[in-house]
Amino acid sequence: MKATAKNAKTVVGAIDPDVLAFTVGQDPVLDLRLAEWDCYGTAAHVTMLSRMKVTPKLFSQEERDAVLRELAKIRDAARAGKFKITEEDQDCHLAIERTLTERLGDLGKRVHTGRSRNDQSATAIRLFVRDQLFGTIEELLDLAKALVAFAKRHRKLPMVGRTHLQPAMPSSVGTWADAWAEELLGTGPFLAAACDRADLCPLGSAASYGVPLPIDRILTSKLLGFHGAVGNVLAAGNSRGKVEAETCAALAQVMVTLSRLAQDLILFSMPEFGYFSLPKEFCTGSSIMPQKYNPDVCELVRSKAAQVCGLSATANAILVGMPGGYNRDLQDTKKIVMEALDTTRASLRILARLVGGLKAHPDRLRAAFADPGVFATDRALELVAGGMPFRDAYHQVRDHLEDLRGMDPDEAVAKKTHFGAPGALSPVLAAHDALIRVLRADNRAVRARIARALRRLLPETR
Amino acid sequence: MKATAKNAKTVVGAIDPDVLAFTVGQDPVLDLRLAEWDCYGTAAHVTMLSRMKVTPKLFSQEERDAVLRELAKIRDAARAGKFKITEEDQDCHLAIERTLTERLGDLGKRVHTGRSRNDQSATAIRLFVRDQLFGTIEELLDLAKALVAFAKRHRKLPMVGRTHLQPAMPSSVGTWADAWAEELLGTGPFLAAACDRADLCPLGSAASYGVPLPIDRILTSKLLGFHGAVGNVLAAGNSRGKVEAETCAALAQVMVTLSRLAQDLILFSMPEFGYFSLPKEFCTGSSIMPQKYNPDVCELVRSKAAQVCGLSATANAILVGMPGGYNRDLQDTKKIVMEALDTTRASLRILARLVGGLKAHPDRLRAAFADPGVFATDRALELVAGGMPFRDAYHQVRDHLEDLRGMDPDEAVAKKTHFGAPGALSPVLAAHDALIRVLRADNRAVRARIARALRRLLPETR
Amino acid sequence: MKATAKNAKTVVGAIDPDVLAFTVGQDPVLDLRLAEWDCYGTAAHVTMLSRMKVTPKLFSQEERDAVLRELAKIRDAARAGKFKITEEDQDCHLAIERTLTERLGDLGKRVHTGRSRNDQSATAIRLFVRDQLFGTIEELLDLAKALVAFAKRHRKLPMVGRTHLQPAMPSSVGTWADAWAEELLGTGPFLAAACDRADLCPLGSAASYGVPLPIDRILTSKLLGFHGAVGNVLAAGNSRGKVEAETCAALAQVMVTLSRLAQDLILFSMPEFGYFSLPKEFCTGSSIMPQKYNPDVCELVRSKAAQVCGLSATANAILVGMPGGYNRDLQDTKKIVMEALDTTRASLRILARLVGGLKAHPDRLRAAFADPGVFATDRALELVAGGMPFRDAYHQVRDHLEDLRGMDPDEAVAKKTHFGAPGALSPVLAAHDALIRVLRADNRAVRARIARALRRLLPETR
Amino acid sequence: MKATAKNAKTVVGAIDPDVLAFTVGQDPVLDLRLAEWDCYGTAAHVTMLSRMKVTPKLFSQEERDAVLRELAKIRDAARAGKFKITEEDQDCHLAIERTLTERLGDLGKRVHTGRSRNDQSATAIRLFVRDQLFGTIEELLDLAKALVAFAKRHRKLPMVGRTHLQPAMPSSVGTWADAWAEELLGTGPFLAAACDRADLCPLGSAASYGVPLPIDRILTSKLLGFHGAVGNVLAAGNSRGKVEAETCAALAQVMVTLSRLAQDLILFSMPEFGYFSLPKEFCTGSSIMPQKYNPDVCELVRSKAAQVCGLSATANAILVGMPGGYNRDLQDTKKIVMEALDTTRASLRILARLVGGLKAHPDRLRAAFADPGVFATDRALELVAGGMPFRDAYHQVRDHLEDLRGMDPDEAVAKKTHFGAPGALSPVLAAHDALIRVLRADNRAVRARIARALRRLLPETR
Repeated sequence: MKATAKNAKTVVGAIDPDVLAFTVGQDPVLDLRLAEWDCYGTAAHVTMLSRMKVTPKLFSQEERDAVLRELAKIRDAARAGKFKITEEDQDCHLAIERTLTERLGDLGKRVHTGRSRNDQSATAIRLFVRDQLFGTIEELLDLAKALVAFAKRHRKLPMVGRTHLQPAMPSSVGTWADAWAEELLGTGPFLAAACDRADLCPLGSAASYGVPLPIDRILTSKLLGFHGAVGNVLAAGNSRGKVEAETCAALAQVMVTLSRLAQDLILFSMPEFGYFSLPKEFCTGSSIMPQKYNPDVCELVRSKAAQVCGLSATANAILVGMPGGYNRDLQDTKKIVMEALDTTRASLRILARLVGGLKAHPDRLRAAFADPGVFATDRALELVAGGMPFRDAYHQVRDHLEDLRGMDPDEAVAKKTHFGAPGALSPVLAAHDALIRVLRADNRAVRARIARALRRLLPETR
Repeated sequence: MKATAKNAKTVVGAIDPDVLAFTVGQDPVLDLRLAEWDCYGTAAHVTMLSRMKVTPKLFSQEERDAVLRELAKIRDAARAGKFKITEEDQDCHLAIERTLTERLGDLGKRVHTGRSRNDQSATAIRLFVRDQLFGTIEELLDLAKALVAFAKRHRKLPMVGRTHLQPAMPSSVGTWADAWAEELLGTGPFLAAACDRADLCPLGSAASYGVPLPIDRILTSKLLGFHGAVGNVLAAGNSRGKVEAETCAALAQVMVTLSRLAQDLILFSMPEFGYFSLPKEFCTGSSIMPQKYNPDVCELVRSKAAQVCGLSATANAILVGMPGGYNRDLQDTKKIVMEALDTTRASLRILARLVGGLKAHPDRLRAAFADPGVFATDRALELVAGGMPFRDAYHQVRDHLEDLRGMDPDEAVAKKTHFGAPGALSPVLAAHDALIRVLRADNRAVRARIARALRRLLPETR
Repeated sequence: MKATAKNAKTVVGAIDPDVLAFTVGQDPVLDLRLAEWDCYGTAAHVTMLSRMKVTPKLFSQEERDAVLRELAKIRDAARAGKFKITEEDQDCHLAIERTLTERLGDLGKRVHTGRSRNDQSATAIRLFVRDQLFGTIEELLDLAKALVAFAKRHRKLPMVGRTHLQPAMPSSVGTWADAWAEELLGTGPFLAAACDRADLCPLGSAASYGVPLPIDRILTSKLLGFHGAVGNVLAAGNSRGKVEAETCAALAQVMVTLSRLAQDLILFSMPEFGYFSLPKEFCTGSSIMPQKYNPDVCELVRSKAAQVCGLSATANAILVGMPGGYNRDLQDTKKIVMEALDTTRASLRILARLVGGLKAHPDRLRAAFADPGVFATDRALELVAGGMPFRDAYHQVRDHLEDLRGMDPDEAVAKKTHFGAPGALSPVLAAHDALIRVLRADNRAVRARIARALRRLLPETR
Repeated sequence: MKATAKNAKTVVGAIDPDVLAFTVGQDPVLDLRLAEWDCYGTAAHVTMLSRMKVTPKLFSQEERDAVLRELAKIRDAARAGKFKITEEDQDCHLAIERTLTERLGDLGKRVHTGRSRNDQSATAIRLFVRDQLFGTIEELLDLAKALVAFAKRHRKLPMVGRTHLQPAMPSSVGTWADAWAEELLGTGPFLAAACDRADLCPLGSAASYGVPLPIDRILTSKLLGFHGAVGNVLAAGNSRGKVEAETCAALAQVMVTLSRLAQDLILFSMPEFGYFSLPKEFCTGSSIMPQKYNPDVCELVRSKAAQVCGLSATANAILVGMPGGYNRDLQDTKKIVMEALDTTRASLRILARLVGGLKAHPDRLRAAFADPGVFATDRALELVAGGMPFRDAYHQVRDHLEDLRGMDPDEAVAKKTHFGAPGALSPVLAAHDALIRVLRADNRAVRARIARALRRLLPETR
């Protein structure tokens, strides 16, 4: 058992204030977000202890009820931002234990029987991360939906397709917007993998080596709505940090995609292109240049992506070469995963609204087809399909490029009708819409199941 | 269509040799590994063209057969290390096209009808990455199996459990070894997510904007054994690099775990511990200090982990802020994913063999229990379970720590019998064994299905 | 000129509250630390404007004095933690401008004539970073001094030298401690390079393109104690972010060294070694295992190193591929450099104190020489030096290893007397001491010169 | 002393071939570049041993001359690409020792007396890195010079200055190009700091713990043209990897700047801007779109920057938490620093040539000033300077923006004449030119001094 700062004075000597500040770090602030989850973890642990077949009982039914009543109050205070964690508490776990002890005397201390701060904290973090990942998925689907909706509104609107940023071939606004939706949806399995890792219960692993008590880890796991328990107790201990690292890795993949969408928005809303305009309320302007709209939100998304990737790299770096069992380094992965989650979710939310208000400018989009070269490759392929030898087709097109001037971009888009091509986007859009609906229904079903379990464990007050 | 170096001289002017060297980079070497896969991709494309409903046919059945015969020869040459890619070729795609043209004349050039180097290259990379990931999973399962086998051999052998690297509580060698197996198996969903992304066919997206021909992307996808096709053609283009980044992210999670296992092996095989000894043939020695065995393999695994994490970060950094559509930056993600795959697989293989030859030293492991403190926490919990108030139990144990001296570590381990605890590891070991079997069967079934599809497309020569 | 949130309502339309929250981020908190420095930057700008040769004067002497009086008050409030920045202010620059305007009316608004938030902010950041780097250097010297002092106290105390963590050769505690001091001092030139970059004045570059006014950038540079001005105005703009990235890169090199020192301390204070014991007040203990001392501070330093390296990588990643001129992404490099500075400085300070209280245990250190192999290599070299053929010497030592048992480690250390060797450490220690003194004197002289300039510009109140 | 693979068979048992492949890695290829430098290091060591005051002499003058003759031959073979390193050799050090022994018998083996592969290899790496950094500096100056020359050619040519990529204010092509030169020159102190670290001699530290022989480390340091010797022998050992990490950190700062220059070139050479055109031989074209020029070189520089930053992060990550003394992980930092150096130098060289051939298009650059808003801020400042109240000036400009239409951009540039502004760039350009000259002269002087020392040590053959 880890000594609290207070205990420390009598038991192992006072902790130096500078040392306390260095080691505790930002935990008293960060842990305000974990406190709610620790209440659930503690409620499950105490409930399990109260059902443990030992004589005398470690917790009577009444004692268990008393503890849960106080935990519900603490949870509500934490949600309302009214729960306090002092630096001497170090973290939410000791703050909750202290509060219980203040209110319930020795009964409060006994909640810690048969567990350690290691599994307690690992449990709260997994509950928190799991909840956040569900929220992330919901918001990712919102953005995907906004992109698909934008794609539908401008499904056939021509847009110059580029390679190397140079104009290359006819494409459409619908193709452009939907492509980012598809890439975003493609990161789903990574978020799901992170969720799977988080959704296993480490409670009862104690300090990674179990306890000589007949605790029931399967029961606590069920009470908390986990889809299973970590098996090996040391695996539970070692996975502290790993949950965070894998979550950050998945979030980084989301942010990479957002940054590329943001970059396209920055470029194509420059006055030299004018394809899109961002909603005015998402830009900063100039008090003197009324027509100037700076795409600050998109620029910041680009930088946020670099940051979440950096957090992912940092989480990995903390773990590389770390020996097994709990090491204090792991405390720092909490802040990292919180920052990665907050940043990713804020970026998803703001972009969903931004895309919702995005405007396309058909005149500018069509005007960009003035250079006939953009039609050349498609034209050559048509000649080939009509039976002209490959080499001849290319020469003919290249030598008569001017004949392509004035070609209709709408027609050019309409001609590409194979699966997934700009001229036949509807089935793809429908498939993406359907996928969003299915994923959302799944996500909500799982969340509802978990919410029910948690309400059963520690009812909502009203 | 991108001009080859050779074409360039007549068409868009010669490429400067320095520029060629800078832009081509290591592709002529790296692409030797892709050539085999490009043969399959090209075979699928030509087969699809030969079935395309246009008059006249783009490829007659005979022409298609002629091309496939040559592709089979090139594939075999590539496998045998006898296929050559020159710097002027730039990459395997142009080298294969050149070879086909040398052998089949204009027919060879026509294989490129209706596709671009972009989708061609994306297809070869996905086929390669998918194949490599299946191999990675197989090797990961081998290492997990070796760890579980070692855990079984020493299931009850006591080992001091540590937190902060300090002795903390009784545990077992079985718990230690199996914990790394469980963590490793836990990275499976990430590898599967990377595999899912890779296992979608981008062929037919051309330069990301499709073609004005009735190509059948679903057909090529099936011919190549993909589980589906990328939908939106621009999503196919944009996902170049993303496949690589997600693969590296998953591999980094594997390597993080390997590095921690390696670190434990380095520490616990130091003479001051002597818990384990590494197989002698895995160590370098000293010509003058016969008893010195340096754990070079483990040290290098630690450093390889840092490198794969670095490659993952680099792949992400290349993508962050990159505008949509093909950009030449993406060429460099190929080298990155190859290095990450090679490094991870080599590390998995060498550690599987190392763990297979690992020896545990029961005398040294038991001798480490000399300090009675390691029994204190468990003892106090037993008193609590026996009815003694929490606080009293702790005081009593602390004040009579010497009474614990000489306690039997085997008994201490045996007393912790709840789910996943050191004294009841058998069911967890059995579950891990079963999981390994299931995952291996799945992996092999998918590989077999794909192998069948590829054999049907381009039969093996004998 | 960037519109303030307040202006925005009338001028370019209201900024959406979500957008404001997303774009402003943590600036209202972070900027509390910049406010003091912005007061100096503004004071220099106004002083320069008041001396500008235009008719009528932009600022009369009285107006300038009035502004400076208020700036001194704001500076003092900021130092005392009493200055407020609202989210509507966005940052300290607008908060200071608002405050001046509230107190001085239109005169307050006029301070912004001829500059932009870009150069204003760049100036405050450079002043802040420069000041912090001086503090970092001071603290780095403190830790180096503590290490050299510890090395002196245990200059000749034998300690097994290791390679691959395996015992290899006789060395000394003095050699061990001083080696980390030397590596730390070796990062000095990197900190100095970062300082050189920060110590150039960007003021007057406006939004990176200068102003059509005869401003005197050399004067403001001198008033602020900079060693020069950035030349090209766009270079001033582009270097926003670069100052931060280079500072983080230098700090990362410091932290890498600290993490390795921390790792050695963790390992060699494990009970299996017992070479060192960390001061008790720097450890957390266990309420039940009185002899357990967890090296939390060292573990956290290891993790902080990974974090500062991650921040350095992130700062670089934000910049890679960013187009020239100000981009909003750059706002985020401020938080990054602040976190890197805080983390590095806290780590330096806590380790200096920890090393100051470190205890060496001669008995355990000498007992580690029980294995005769550790003397083998040195012994063979002595035989070679005595004339025995190389090969014979090695065979003889290896075949009679037991003869080395019981050799005196103190003697073995004493025999290695060439430059820098364990037996002749005194001159190296003296050189390190001298270097610390010189660097400290230099650092203090520069700081004093700058402090004088700043006091002249905006006198201290009493 | 580390056993060679060959020795190993008799002494400590055969190394497993898989293990050998895993541990040796790419060293036989990478070390071809170190072989030349190891010849110098070995020559210095043997020369020093021949002067060592022991009886009998370890090396007679004749023996020393014989060894040096063979070393000169090996060096020449290495330079000519004719020196061979087998996997059994493992690295260049053992290959050279083997070659000497083949040619000189036991005398060849004796060159290793009093040193270890650790200090031998550290010496070769530092000599290599130092040489490469001098080359890097030279090439950085070439690029800076090309940028300044381009800036001079287009010193007054107007170019829209941007913030947030949006048009903001009048600037000039000269300002744009010179700004990148100044930022590049600003990375000089970092390269110098890396050079300072590399330019200290680790030879004689042996396996980090010195030797019981009167070796003269100051002498070897002078013979090799180092500006000093590492002091503490363990610091010499610990700095393996640190030299590489600091070099990579400095190179990353160079690459960050190159990537931003590359990004600007990509953007401003897009047809929508047309400000610049890249030399045709630096682009890839399209066989069918004659007017399409893809900026492949610039795109790859962007990606190379991400890679060098990744290598820097990886080098740091390998070191973080690594215990003191040699660890095998350090072998991998060699490949990392080589790749970072090669990539940076290739990027510098190709960009210097590209900038040398860059064309500016005055018509397109001036046409970009069509929107009057770009003149607004400067105009308002002029009114302020003329005495109009700040607020009034802004209102007046904003309300009569159309009056600014048709303003002459050349005049607008000419009006900004303060230090560093677009209208007064000449002194800044002259200062940059002068700085380039001074830095080049310094770099060449140091290189010449070192070259003389090395020629004295091991004369050039002719």
